Amino acid sequence: MIRFLAAYDTPDDPEAFDRHYREVHIPLAKKLPGLRRYTISRNAAPTRDREAYYLIAELDWDSETDLQHAFQTPEGRATADDVAKLAPTDKVRTMVYELEDALR
Amino acid sequence: MIRFLAAYDTPDDPEAFDRHYREVHIPLAKKLPGLRRYTISRNAAPTRDREAYYLIAELDWDSETDLQHAFQTPEGRATADDVAKLAPTDKVRTMVYELEDALR
Repeated sequence: MIRFLAAYDTPDDPEAFDRHYREVHIPLAKKLPGLRRYTISRNAAPTRDREAYYLIAELDWDSETDLQHAFQTPEGRATADDVAKLAPTDKVRTMVYELEDALR
Repeated sequence: MIRFLAAYDTPDDPEAFDRHYREVHIPLAKKLPGLRRYTISRNAAPTRDREAYYLIAELDWDSETDLQHAFQTPEGRATADDVAKLAPTDKVRTMVYELEDALR
């Protein structure tokens, strides 16, 4: 399993961000080919003395090939472009990683 | 589902960090009562121009009550104390959030 994670800082206008995320971004991202799982955080709270991210989105694919393919499609490019509309680079941190099961 | 996420910046001594994480932290965390899922990142890479976290650990419980309970047990306190040994506060960001299924 491979995961794309986007961690958004608190936006300048949370209400506008939430509306854009719900009404534009989720419908776009849902069209990504091969997407197996897509979760977003609710009520994120820090557990120590650093701020929690405002929103964490996690999107999973079966393999890195599938993920790379998804982002090369028109749907993938539209979704990536929309992340840039949602937040400037200094307000969102995105990364891709393989998931290793630590319970095994 | 509720998730505890820890995002670690690149440590000063990655080899010592990895050893401690594998040999001490994972065995401790695996004992947390009610833990349903525990994944760690492998080969994390940024997708834009900001650095990726060195390690992202995600631990899931069925409910916030279960998670709170887990961290109040001796195993939970030992695991939390060990996070502090793994990384100073400015090198790790931890948070708790509910998981919302965006594909529904």
